[in-house]
Amino acid sequence: MTQALLIRGGTVVNTDREFQADVLCADGRIIAVGETAATLAPAGAQTLDATGQYVMPGGIDPHTHMQLPFMGTVTMDDFYTGTAAALAGGTTSIIDFVIPDPQQELMDAWRTWRGWAEKSASDYMFHVAITWWGDSVSRDMGTLVQQEGVNSFKHFMAYKNAIMCDDETLVNSFRRCLELGAMPTVHAENGEMVYLLQQELARKGLTGPEGHPLSRPPVVEGEAANRAIAIADVFGIPIYVVHVSCIEAADAIARARARGQRVYGEVLAGHLLLDDSVYRHPDFATAAAHVMSPPFRPTGHQEHLWRALQSGTLHTTATDHCTFCAAQKAAGRDLFAKIPNGCGGVEERMAVLWHEGVNSGRLTPSEFVTVTSANAARLFNVYPQKGCVAAGADADLVLWDPAATKTISVKTQFSKGDFNIFEGRQVRGLPSHTISRGAVVWANGDLRAVAGAGRYVKRPAFGTQFTAAGKRLEALKPQPVARPA
Amino acid sequence: MTQALLIRGGTVVNTDREFQADVLCADGRIIAVGETAATLAPAGAQTLDATGQYVMPGGIDPHTHMQLPFMGTVTMDDFYTGTAAALAGGTTSIIDFVIPDPQQELMDAWRTWRGWAEKSASDYMFHVAITWWGDSVSRDMGTLVQQEGVNSFKHFMAYKNAIMCDDETLVNSFRRCLELGAMPTVHAENGEMVYLLQQELARKGLTGPEGHPLSRPPVVEGEAANRAIAIADVFGIPIYVVHVSCIEAADAIARARARGQRVYGEVLAGHLLLDDSVYRHPDFATAAAHVMSPPFRPTGHQEHLWRALQSGTLHTTATDHCTFCAAQKAAGRDLFAKIPNGCGGVEERMAVLWHEGVNSGRLTPSEFVTVTSANAARLFNVYPQKGCVAAGADADLVLWDPAATKTISVKTQFSKGDFNIFEGRQVRGLPSHTISRGAVVWANGDLRAVAGAGRYVKRPAFGTQFTAAGKRLEALKPQPVARPA
Amino acid sequence: MTQALLIRGGTVVNTDREFQADVLCADGRIIAVGETAATLAPAGAQTLDATGQYVMPGGIDPHTHMQLPFMGTVTMDDFYTGTAAALAGGTTSIIDFVIPDPQQELMDAWRTWRGWAEKSASDYMFHVAITWWGDSVSRDMGTLVQQEGVNSFKHFMAYKNAIMCDDETLVNSFRRCLELGAMPTVHAENGEMVYLLQQELARKGLTGPEGHPLSRPPVVEGEAANRAIAIADVFGIPIYVVHVSCIEAADAIARARARGQRVYGEVLAGHLLLDDSVYRHPDFATAAAHVMSPPFRPTGHQEHLWRALQSGTLHTTATDHCTFCAAQKAAGRDLFAKIPNGCGGVEERMAVLWHEGVNSGRLTPSEFVTVTSANAARLFNVYPQKGCVAAGADADLVLWDPAATKTISVKTQFSKGDFNIFEGRQVRGLPSHTISRGAVVWANGDLRAVAGAGRYVKRPAFGTQFTAAGKRLEALKPQPVARPA
Amino acid sequence: MTQALLIRGGTVVNTDREFQADVLCADGRIIAVGETAATLAPAGAQTLDATGQYVMPGGIDPHTHMQLPFMGTVTMDDFYTGTAAALAGGTTSIIDFVIPDPQQELMDAWRTWRGWAEKSASDYMFHVAITWWGDSVSRDMGTLVQQEGVNSFKHFMAYKNAIMCDDETLVNSFRRCLELGAMPTVHAENGEMVYLLQQELARKGLTGPEGHPLSRPPVVEGEAANRAIAIADVFGIPIYVVHVSCIEAADAIARARARGQRVYGEVLAGHLLLDDSVYRHPDFATAAAHVMSPPFRPTGHQEHLWRALQSGTLHTTATDHCTFCAAQKAAGRDLFAKIPNGCGGVEERMAVLWHEGVNSGRLTPSEFVTVTSANAARLFNVYPQKGCVAAGADADLVLWDPAATKTISVKTQFSKGDFNIFEGRQVRGLPSHTISRGAVVWANGDLRAVAGAGRYVKRPAFGTQFTAAGKRLEALKPQPVARPA
Repeated sequence: MTQALLIRGGTVVNTDREFQADVLCADGRIIAVGETAATLAPAGAQTLDATGQYVMPGGIDPHTHMQLPFMGTVTMDDFYTGTAAALAGGTTSIIDFVIPDPQQELMDAWRTWRGWAEKSASDYMFHVAITWWGDSVSRDMGTLVQQEGVNSFKHFMAYKNAIMCDDETLVNSFRRCLELGAMPTVHAENGEMVYLLQQELARKGLTGPEGHPLSRPPVVEGEAANRAIAIADVFGIPIYVVHVSCIEAADAIARARARGQRVYGEVLAGHLLLDDSVYRHPDFATAAAHVMSPPFRPTGHQEHLWRALQSGTLHTTATDHCTFCAAQKAAGRDLFAKIPNGCGGVEERMAVLWHEGVNSGRLTPSEFVTVTSANAARLFNVYPQKGCVAAGADADLVLWDPAATKTISVKTQFSKGDFNIFEGRQVRGLPSHTISRGAVVWANGDLRAVAGAGRYVKRPAFGTQFTAAGKRLEALKPQPVARPA
Repeated sequence: MTQALLIRGGTVVNTDREFQADVLCADGRIIAVGETAATLAPAGAQTLDATGQYVMPGGIDPHTHMQLPFMGTVTMDDFYTGTAAALAGGTTSIIDFVIPDPQQELMDAWRTWRGWAEKSASDYMFHVAITWWGDSVSRDMGTLVQQEGVNSFKHFMAYKNAIMCDDETLVNSFRRCLELGAMPTVHAENGEMVYLLQQELARKGLTGPEGHPLSRPPVVEGEAANRAIAIADVFGIPIYVVHVSCIEAADAIARARARGQRVYGEVLAGHLLLDDSVYRHPDFATAAAHVMSPPFRPTGHQEHLWRALQSGTLHTTATDHCTFCAAQKAAGRDLFAKIPNGCGGVEERMAVLWHEGVNSGRLTPSEFVTVTSANAARLFNVYPQKGCVAAGADADLVLWDPAATKTISVKTQFSKGDFNIFEGRQVRGLPSHTISRGAVVWANGDLRAVAGAGRYVKRPAFGTQFTAAGKRLEALKPQPVARPA
Repeated sequence: MTQALLIRGGTVVNTDREFQADVLCADGRIIAVGETAATLAPAGAQTLDATGQYVMPGGIDPHTHMQLPFMGTVTMDDFYTGTAAALAGGTTSIIDFVIPDPQQELMDAWRTWRGWAEKSASDYMFHVAITWWGDSVSRDMGTLVQQEGVNSFKHFMAYKNAIMCDDETLVNSFRRCLELGAMPTVHAENGEMVYLLQQELARKGLTGPEGHPLSRPPVVEGEAANRAIAIADVFGIPIYVVHVSCIEAADAIARARARGQRVYGEVLAGHLLLDDSVYRHPDFATAAAHVMSPPFRPTGHQEHLWRALQSGTLHTTATDHCTFCAAQKAAGRDLFAKIPNGCGGVEERMAVLWHEGVNSGRLTPSEFVTVTSANAARLFNVYPQKGCVAAGADADLVLWDPAATKTISVKTQFSKGDFNIFEGRQVRGLPSHTISRGAVVWANGDLRAVAGAGRYVKRPAFGTQFTAAGKRLEALKPQPVARPA
Repeated sequence: MTQALLIRGGTVVNTDREFQADVLCADGRIIAVGETAATLAPAGAQTLDATGQYVMPGGIDPHTHMQLPFMGTVTMDDFYTGTAAALAGGTTSIIDFVIPDPQQELMDAWRTWRGWAEKSASDYMFHVAITWWGDSVSRDMGTLVQQEGVNSFKHFMAYKNAIMCDDETLVNSFRRCLELGAMPTVHAENGEMVYLLQQELARKGLTGPEGHPLSRPPVVEGEAANRAIAIADVFGIPIYVVHVSCIEAADAIARARARGQRVYGEVLAGHLLLDDSVYRHPDFATAAAHVMSPPFRPTGHQEHLWRALQSGTLHTTATDHCTFCAAQKAAGRDLFAKIPNGCGGVEERMAVLWHEGVNSGRLTPSEFVTVTSANAARLFNVYPQKGCVAAGADADLVLWDPAATKTISVKTQFSKGDFNIFEGRQVRGLPSHTISRGAVVWANGDLRAVAGAGRYVKRPAFGTQFTAAGKRLEALKPQPVARPA
């Protein structure tokens, strides 16, 4: 049993409001919020003074890849170092991905990832990728939902000849998700077009990292997003589009939402802040360090994504944290298509979003909570256990000091790796303390992450509201017309 | 002091979630929500069994006109009968309008309306209309915001030669709202176009109620909404558009929101459910009973409004409750333009929205709360005092029985008047009990409204978040360019 | 050599203007338009009095299927009867389709269709469908463009397990079109979704014709149109979408055009006039007679298509003329998916479009010419040989009497078959005379079509303007970044 | 009588096509186009060799202000120097503006401008501005349309306290235009907002030219365009929006066209090529030289305007040629609002549009003709007299050498003034010869403009097609509902 913890004098921020209140935690949970908190605090409770600070739900990063084997190598951060870095940045939960090889049984891959993740320092959850189709896939999806606490499945529409889903698999998997009450998610890029453009570029001798964004132009993402959303619309199932990076994809979501469809979008901190000039950097290592998919986009897309986040077209922020070092990235020295795809960010997300989002007036503190934790929790059905400062919730909290400043640098980061895509940015607004399941794991620069302290969090299937929200397939049965034989 | 009230066994619904919890009220406030509620309940507390029911914030109708002198007559419902009817339907607060005559001092009108409202049975608030411009108007706006708890001002863009605001007044008033931290709201119809169309129609002999919607086509509303939003955009001030009735106006809001502007829309229950065929009813009294502005719209607009509500383009639901009897409506027997404008609905809003919104799968119960109370409270800055089931909030609650049914009829309504625009509709989902400031005022058909029991609720000015949300005018001062003289 | 023909006193209508002028034809060509026409007319020239009539380019129907083997049977109209019916309706050219079976060599299919078409009474051209991919397909595309006068290729995105193109074939074929200067065209429906919906509907017992439109909802067409347009955008190649039937597909075109892409849309007369209530007709034969793909759409889509035609989002009008009789349609008596798809219209197109388009004020006579002949001729590169009343053009003309009326009926049609989808419609505005290559082939009800009189018209590949219009692939080669090794 | 002129060997370009043809001109008209041209040429005809060149209709600039008294001074170019400069650039007609002072009788102003224009070297026409309302205005509009060949009226929605139209005037004038068959046109900027922003900026000390674009942001133009279009929609009258400069206004047009409304847009060469960085130039004279309204816009708007031109949202190109010298511009040395508004361009329009439009692949030569002459002629009802190379048309032609190059400079321009907004731009594609009413007035650098050689061209009122295109007001009379008394 953990020591009780009383947080005094702060401004609690939830998705719906801000208010002055003390917060009492014990046994990993929030026990009380408000006037009773101090009253109920046991003698010997640890006390944190949050005067002048915000007390917010710990961040949830719904898109990370720790310890991922990908493109012939493995990411730098494993589940321990990655979640420790997350805690240092105020993020107390991640949702990672189980990615079976084509033809690999889902439950085999599931067990592998569950084993890897046991060393996590923060709580964690999993999406499971559907990379092929067959009876056993359908069966294992059922097992995962009904027994293992998985309520979301990922579909890669890119990466031809690897983990790409074709339309036939998409259609079957979405259909199965509807039966199970699980949320389908997509990486939206048209893999056929990417493949052809990679070949065209190679043929023209454009083999450096500057070719990477040209091989995956925005229209390629917009098309795939539109397609996945259309399939979801036919089924009347909600859908979640990961790492929306461009105007075209955001507009596909906006159009669908405007017709009443339940479509949700995620945006990465990197796509909000960086543009595609990074790929033309004269230093190969620097340019290659930014290679991820979808790529960073031309100027103009960033502002559009912020607006989409403000207006409710986009709902969550993530990082797609997936780090490779320069030696790994060098595999693509001669051909950008061979550069392992991925960038970091799990440690910096909260700070850069506060700085660019709240300090700029784009987001209120409540909206910040909405897009950094509450919406992720709601969309993946762990709210208010996560994403909410309320009695009964998990004691995953961040004390946010809006006046603290720092300059982001690879030299001071906790995450593994030799590069930081936010290098040199000055931010105002930082976590003074992070609390994970009631334990103070980050205090004014002191990181106290413990390997294995994190727990796997089950997420229940969606129930009637989910199906209520999408009744399209039912509508396929109007009364047949009676006709004489 | 009111008797303590313990509501047991229900499902509490807030804007962010549903959960099983008991609720304890005392002294007009909610004292506890959750496990402690029963523990804290004093002996002798009244107990309501909410098993199988939802416990929701009482409805807020942000747009009513009780006791309004308009077009030469006065509405049927005064502040007592109107608020009593509201309570019978599960609505525990209204926001009414103070409407000065042109050249009338605002504070004079203010005192008049405050006097009329003292007999209210439910809590009430006021928007104040700006119908002309002058130094005293600007001064009185300050007094109202700083001393009287008014944080929103209404602008009629229609009703030429009466209460219509021209662009010069709009611009000046919005500018003053920005200084004061008050929300500008608009009735969006281009009054010049309405005036001309009324004349054209009269010239063509089209003088019956069927001419009313032709004199105010959707484009007239869409234009005005777009104009008011553009003015707000220039100032960087949020704006609230009342009674959005058509695709064109909803689209104007959607476009603005898509570019990151804080624009909010209200929709009336009537505009969601009725179409313009009512104006072609062969019975004059029936057709005239539906005359209000904006009018009910052609088929197709209703579905679009629902979708806008689902997707977050529209935020609140209201009624514009403003009832006239057949004898009053007969003033326009020879010319539709003389029919007093207005319809009822304050009593039926919650039920028809639940039936068409929740039972149909369009809205979840939390979304229902969002659009019937929480958003109105947030947008007019009385959240969580209103619009939230939480300790510390006002004990304004409704116990909602999702299985109860009835057929709406003028014969059984509490509202005054001889017509009900929802006549004959069968609804499933009704308030079993309404609680206003801790008192049970409606219990299974027994209405216990008390004249004068309602209180005026002050709404504070918006603070830094409001200005953070709109910094456009600040942006007007980039560094001047230094130039040699 | 044909007799010279002088048309006097009519109003010539071209895409850019209307003007009073005489027209002289000889040897199958227009010799003179204007004052010199009468002067140059040889003695013995036949004279037609066109007073009070319009003299327009003969219609071009860019989408017909004469003598098509499809779904196990062959259409009722062959190339003679179908083109004869066209002439009776004022249409003097068709563009039909060569449709190879998967794995069939294109040139084999080409020769088959060319043989069938020799009996045509009017001029004719061919699009060629790409139903599979391989080196010989690529080679034959070259032969067709360079030697056979084909400059457009068709891609069916629907009809899974039959002639459907997957994305890999689409991408390769579009790439080849770009090299050749040929226009890619698509039948836009997502075949995977149609296939799944057909199965779902069968499972639910919805096997009658009323299931047909449910198996191909608008979103299925909108998705495919958007996808094909995206592929074309990546290549920077123009694209032509056949039979746009719904809001979703028209909007996909409008979005692309708004970003400067050269996308063109075709709409069928049937989709402009009929709605999907036809599929719920209690008589199976009547319902089945309307089964075609895409299906007729719910009310509301028709008006949107008209507006798209008015605003330049859609460019051509066609019929997809493809007729089956009741006995053929009966093959789907037990399962709608087995009903041979197709409806007629080649004979009625001009009249119904004039009636609904020009008489209603939606289109001017010049705009009528634009969408019934001139745009088809320009987009398929036979303008001004076809689609223009000018000296040097083919003498394919129609004298249009705007005051003539008739009631359309299967009883009086020239087209084969036992059904007319426009049955019972009264139209005002009809061809009094049709002239094909200078010969009067229709004169006030007297049809003088001659089997074999029509000629195959070669269409040259697009040249520099085509590539000028789409330079996207060129843009894939910016300067590579010079980096130290 | 002018000498006959035979142009041999060129490629004639019209709005619908390009073709090789000789062109014969005599007596100010085109006599023949094609094979007969050489045959019909009289002995002694002047011959121009157009080999390798395009023969196009002379440009029409539908928006110029020659000799305009404005803001206390008069523009540099009068009707002679301005039209001479136009001829040097390949433009053979202008449409200028008669602008009555408020309360000045229209016919008085009309006579004044007609007198000023008699010295024109090219043909000219007039729009007439409606700057106030009254019975005499309505009457004079009738006289102008019926007797003076004016078929378009201009409305300034900006310039408060000067020539600004309020909504009441707009509505009345549009209504009168509908009766007369005249096209309403608008300068779309919300004058109330501009006025307020000018005051705010002055209050903040932002008085330099860099304040000018801040006082007229795009939303101010978008709002006004949307409003004028809405008024036109209510009346069912076409409308033409002059100098569309920004995304917001172009989108307002696009939305209206998408719903089938006949709305037309004009774009200036300057708005297509320049951005708003010019206002931050450290040299006051340079910054001030660019002051015009609407101002040049931030980067991104230009590309959007090009796309709108490509897709048919915009229809014509113009210049708003209105030149003031540095000494005149200096009137606003202390306050940008006092800088006389206006820039040149009538001489450069054709060349910069060819270079940026045709050389870039955005426009084909036919599309260039469409947007530089044919559409202006059609929209103002002088087609094919102007804007078309065809027998019977006025012999206003330009021989365009696509290989000729030059660098634009104030040093070599013919237009008066001391500044050129296109200074230093290199262009490829220039007029080798300009022909005005059959006379060669520009030949390889030799300008032979003759004062007074230009003629006033009457433009007839629009007839049935115009009203057919807009039947909205008629629709205001459905059958009244019969009701018992």
